[in-house]
Amino acid sequence: MFERRQPIPIADAVKKIIAFPHQAVIEHVPIEESYGRFLAADLTATHDVPHFDRSPYDGFAIRSIDTEGAGISNPVEFEVIDHIGAGAVSAKIVSRNQAVRIMTGAMMPEGADAVVMFEVAHTYEKNEVPFMSIKRSIKKGENVSFRGEDAKEGEVLVKKGISINPGIQAMLATFGYNQVPVAKKPLVGLFATGTELLEVDEPLVPGKIRNSNSYMIAAQIARSGGTCRYFGKLPDEFDTCFTAVKNAIDKVDFLITTGGVSVGDYDFLPEIYQKLGAEVLFNKVAMRPGSVTTVARHNGKLLFGLSGNPSACYVGFELFVRPVIRIALCSPKPHLRKEKAILEVDFPKANPFTRLVRSTVYLEDGRLKVVPSGLDKSNIIMSLSGANALTILPGGTRGFTAGSEVTVLLLEDQTGSEWPW
Amino acid sequence: MFERRQPIPIADAVKKIIAFPHQAVIEHVPIEESYGRFLAADLTATHDVPHFDRSPYDGFAIRSIDTEGAGISNPVEFEVIDHIGAGAVSAKIVSRNQAVRIMTGAMMPEGADAVVMFEVAHTYEKNEVPFMSIKRSIKKGENVSFRGEDAKEGEVLVKKGISINPGIQAMLATFGYNQVPVAKKPLVGLFATGTELLEVDEPLVPGKIRNSNSYMIAAQIARSGGTCRYFGKLPDEFDTCFTAVKNAIDKVDFLITTGGVSVGDYDFLPEIYQKLGAEVLFNKVAMRPGSVTTVARHNGKLLFGLSGNPSACYVGFELFVRPVIRIALCSPKPHLRKEKAILEVDFPKANPFTRLVRSTVYLEDGRLKVVPSGLDKSNIIMSLSGANALTILPGGTRGFTAGSEVTVLLLEDQTGSEWPW
Repeated sequence: MFERRQPIPIADAVKKIIAFPHQAVIEHVPIEESYGRFLAADLTATHDVPHFDRSPYDGFAIRSIDTEGAGISNPVEFEVIDHIGAGAVSAKIVSRNQAVRIMTGAMMPEGADAVVMFEVAHTYEKNEVPFMSIKRSIKKGENVSFRGEDAKEGEVLVKKGISINPGIQAMLATFGYNQVPVAKKPLVGLFATGTELLEVDEPLVPGKIRNSNSYMIAAQIARSGGTCRYFGKLPDEFDTCFTAVKNAIDKVDFLITTGGVSVGDYDFLPEIYQKLGAEVLFNKVAMRPGSVTTVARHNGKLLFGLSGNPSACYVGFELFVRPVIRIALCSPKPHLRKEKAILEVDFPKANPFTRLVRSTVYLEDGRLKVVPSGLDKSNIIMSLSGANALTILPGGTRGFTAGSEVTVLLLEDQTGSEWPW
Repeated sequence: MFERRQPIPIADAVKKIIAFPHQAVIEHVPIEESYGRFLAADLTATHDVPHFDRSPYDGFAIRSIDTEGAGISNPVEFEVIDHIGAGAVSAKIVSRNQAVRIMTGAMMPEGADAVVMFEVAHTYEKNEVPFMSIKRSIKKGENVSFRGEDAKEGEVLVKKGISINPGIQAMLATFGYNQVPVAKKPLVGLFATGTELLEVDEPLVPGKIRNSNSYMIAAQIARSGGTCRYFGKLPDEFDTCFTAVKNAIDKVDFLITTGGVSVGDYDFLPEIYQKLGAEVLFNKVAMRPGSVTTVARHNGKLLFGLSGNPSACYVGFELFVRPVIRIALCSPKPHLRKEKAILEVDFPKANPFTRLVRSTVYLEDGRLKVVPSGLDKSNIIMSLSGANALTILPGGTRGFTAGSEVTVLLLEDQTGSEWPW
């Protein structure tokens, strides 16, 4: 009747999963579609920035040498020989006591080596010819942005595995990355198992509940950067489940099932893995919730058997599935970001198992604080809605008191941790 | 030559923008597409959760009264009259010394008021009839999840204006929200102006640079929750710009232009606003970068004239455009989230203006710390790539030293602030 399972520590379970060889696949997407994707190659400067000497202000481009000796009582006069806006290039060469009226961003004209800002120039006309004069000397290079000042051609500016943010979008555009090399989103197959499950649009009937795990997991897959392929829900019937799982494996990069992994009379996943000939990496983890999480390997694919319990399912995904998705996205920090926070409530009851409590972290006066996001019963989906972190409460003989420092794993974060365990 | 502009404080500029009446539009999207969208109505429990008394464990449903007096030397025996998994409903009524074998999640059978977990039951058969016995008494209600224990019908579980996360997805599914009421994403029109601009796929030529602001702003619009409609780039020609802007206004909810708002010879936006008859809310803000940011109002629409300088453009968007997008998404906290952080570097130079320094915040031992994300020259797009915050350095006569507490605005955040100024 009772299958005896040997629980392994969370860290060991994660190690077994990430030891599996994961290959990132590169694809190119138009820059318009690259925001939020993960760079699959280093972003390299394809040219100097700026790629020409330019004026950072509106003013007059001159030869600094012509301002030597200028002073309050000794203004220097320049004839304004051209007028250029950004994007225009002057055909003139600036000679002695000549100036080109130049706008912000425009290329420095030949011969000029400094810019006089409007504010320090006195402008006037003589016989309809524009002139300007200044009453101080200007240093060579003053008010000039030099070629390569911001970035040098060939420089690596952003490392691969980083999620593309608005600033990186700007850099991609600057360097002409019309097509952006990004990591292909891994395709994660998903089945919900359970005879008790109704579709979202079905009316309630006694004994049955609506399938919520699939929608939750689909969102977790999206948040992690993967693509979900939902295959539907399955009743607790061995043959139906076996055939469905067997046929789905080849269509996806990873396969998630929810439910059916415990030791109940209708929990068929263990038998399904056995009949498939899949190698079970582990089927019990020393943690709450999610202890029955099972991961197996078959035909080069990972099969994630998450619990049907919503909280256990949620936690199992974040600890075990998220890292493999992030590895497939080239991320050097594929795990949930680990931080320290101050616990704001008591957890008086001791628990022999390591608990992962769905929590809300927030900052107060620059300090990270954490409270559980709901009642900590593992069957309460309500507590998931406010969760932006998991608080790790190590198993032991004592409870935890408000004010103590605890470790939290952040859920809404693109940075990640290399190894939080 | 010089147009004199009166700078106003950032807070006043933001106030002028959000004083404008903003109407959220509700639309319904399939639950599969609702992750990351903003709820446009409160999420209410459409039924009790659970909606029937159920067993939270695998075990035997019994009448607790039958266990009275049970003990080590006085086991009580039960005939197992049925066997149900989750989703099944027993047709049997549990009478005296009868039990129903029940799996996690299944509905309690009639007559039973407690569950005996497998671990405490001894099972056996007599004449092929299954029996079980226990050696302790069980309390009424023990191991039963009662109807309404997690949520009561009619209860508001999530307030409108919240971004839908995986936990909320689960709740939406549970309550049968097949179609989810979300705020329609505001459509934000976008023009880049500047004769110096090349398309991303065009080769560089002297004096010109590739248009990077449009891609950056498009990503910022997406990050804020809006939809970008990019109308293309415009040369610095008054008539072309005027016609393009005029024709675009009616096609979008807000219109952003980048460039052309300063006092340079080819900065035509001020004249365009004038010819349109638009009411300029402000055209100078007491801040660096982004002081020339201009916002006008025309035909009930806001026109955002952001600077062409990438950093100023970036900051102008986050301070002034993001809040109106978030207001349109029903968010009660539409502004960038404001927090306190420890400055990790010196800013020795005083500056009379309030500076918004593109920065990277990170946690160290549970404390928020901040460093500038690059050199703080406003024309350096490189510093944008690592930015996840803006550090506010108030204007004054002194610099800032490492170790001091500063205010930061978080960029990668869905929580927001009600009013950070």
